[in-house]
Amino acid sequence: MNSLSRDAQVKIMEGTVANAEKYLGQFCMLLASYTRKTARLRDKVDLLIRHIMDFANTENPEMRSCLKDFGEELSKVQDYRQAQVERLDVKVIGPLKAYGPMTKSKRTDIKKFNSVRNREMKELEVLQKVKQRNPSDRQGISLSALVEAEANVQKASVDVNHTTHQLEEIIFKFQKEKLKDLKNIFSNFVTIEMTFHAKALEVYTNAFQCLQDFDEGKDLEAFRSKICISDLENNARPVQTHGPLDTQRSMRRQGQVSEDEQDEEEDEEEEEEEVEELQEVSDEDYNQYSKIKKIDI
Amino acid sequence: MNSLSRDAQVKIMEGTVANAEKYLGQFCMLLASYTRKTARLRDKVDLLIRHIMDFANTENPEMRSCLKDFGEELSKVQDYRQAQVERLDVKVIGPLKAYGPMTKSKRTDIKKFNSVRNREMKELEVLQKVKQRNPSDRQGISLSALVEAEANVQKASVDVNHTTHQLEEIIFKFQKEKLKDLKNIFSNFVTIEMTFHAKALEVYTNAFQCLQDFDEGKDLEAFRSKICISDLENNARPVQTHGPLDTQRSMRRQGQVSEDEQDEEEDEEEEEEEVEELQEVSDEDYNQYSKIKKIDI
Repeated sequence: MNSLSRDAQVKIMEGTVANAEKYLGQFCMLLASYTRKTARLRDKVDLLIRHIMDFANTENPEMRSCLKDFGEELSKVQDYRQAQVERLDVKVIGPLKAYGPMTKSKRTDIKKFNSVRNREMKELEVLQKVKQRNPSDRQGISLSALVEAEANVQKASVDVNHTTHQLEEIIFKFQKEKLKDLKNIFSNFVTIEMTFHAKALEVYTNAFQCLQDFDEGKDLEAFRSKICISDLENNARPVQTHGPLDTQRSMRRQGQVSEDEQDEEEDEEEEEEEVEELQEVSDEDYNQYSKIKKIDI
Repeated sequence: MNSLSRDAQVKIMEGTVANAEKYLGQFCMLLASYTRKTARLRDKVDLLIRHIMDFANTENPEMRSCLKDFGEELSKVQDYRQAQVERLDVKVIGPLKAYGPMTKSKRTDIKKFNSVRNREMKELEVLQKVKQRNPSDRQGISLSALVEAEANVQKASVDVNHTTHQLEEIIFKFQKEKLKDLKNIFSNFVTIEMTFHAKALEVYTNAFQCLQDFDEGKDLEAFRSKICISDLENNARPVQTHGPLDTQRSMRRQGQVSEDEQDEEEDEEEEEEEVEELQEVSDEDYNQYSKIKKIDI
């Protein structure tokens, strides 16, 4: 019966509350971190989509249209990711967060019980002392002191019994709620994830189709007609003597690239935002990309 | 015909290469960042699984078994995420990375063409000067100088035509490869994502079942038998007079919680690793969780 003593019982209760506080707290933090990282994944793809759209504007109609369709599908996945983030926040992080104050309140309940318990111990010690003060000399014991000590012990025991009952109910209810909540919280997590995966799967199927529909031949024809003029102008000599740089400037003045320029300005802002990100990329090959030379076409 | 002049043609080629360098570079960086963030998501869930397993060891058999099964399913999702990360690296990031050196080499080709082109311009200017030096006095012109200048122009023009043809082929081939590669790279991305989503969906279906199978009632019975001793020992008084702390120490010595202690030591290490992560969490409710009090049960 010793292992089932009140001390052990309270230790189990304390352990239940403390483990809930510790582990549910960790679940909360890790799932909050998971949610934040998912949001960053969404941001990263949103940025990718912007660059895909900008790049699409520099390409011929077939590729442009393919990239734009592809970008739109990618964007839908991010909308679902956003919904995933919001749902995780409300249906997973929120309920776990509630265990912070909840476990704190249970700890207070146990503390209260322990103080009632300690009072009983004290009264018992007083009674022992009264009894042992002069065990051989029964006359020496003040009868009223003994009666009072026994009454105090009795009262303290009643309090302990009452509080024990209360605490058992509180902790049992807490455990019941905790089991139900954990099942619900993890089920919510799984359902939210499943919804996202199912939707993403659906949208990516369309995205894949966009890419498969791309007519490479048609796009290349358009490109060839733009760059292959040597057959037409085999012996043609340039009329002006200015270098490529002048042509470049005059083309800019014609305003035909103003939209692209604007895009590039936006990109520059983004690149500034991304400085931290870029600095992570230390690979030699990657570094070449950070030295991107702006050109005006 | 002016817009189709050789200058404009070269500008289009330069633009094609520069845009590929700029945008494919950005795609590479963003998708590499996406992949890294996916890997961090995997790490985060791996850590969550460890805590779920540790927590499972503190629970009664029903919940313990449910949490362990759930953790194992979560772990399978992370294995698929790991495969996703590896595939993205090989089939998306790798091919995009290759465009760094590739566009650099195309820029060199265009530069080479421009120098051939500039030589022709120079020879033309020389010819113009020879012709204009003394236009009224035809006798004053050295015939040999005129012939030489015209021959040089002719030779330079032949070089330009030859290099133009070469450059057209190089850039056309580059564009062809680029279109094909982009289609493949994005198709790879979509396929890798789809594979992951499909697998995750499958595994989460099992995970959901694990949670649904959890027998709350059976688990609560086991819990009640541990904590509700008040009916059995209604009037029992504690034999020893030591406080809860002493009991705690004696229980530790009995060795019955040694396994849990070990788990907690591991947790402590993890918590140290997580310091940075914890510092991100500034919400008041969250902070309560970081003040987790260790207890010995």
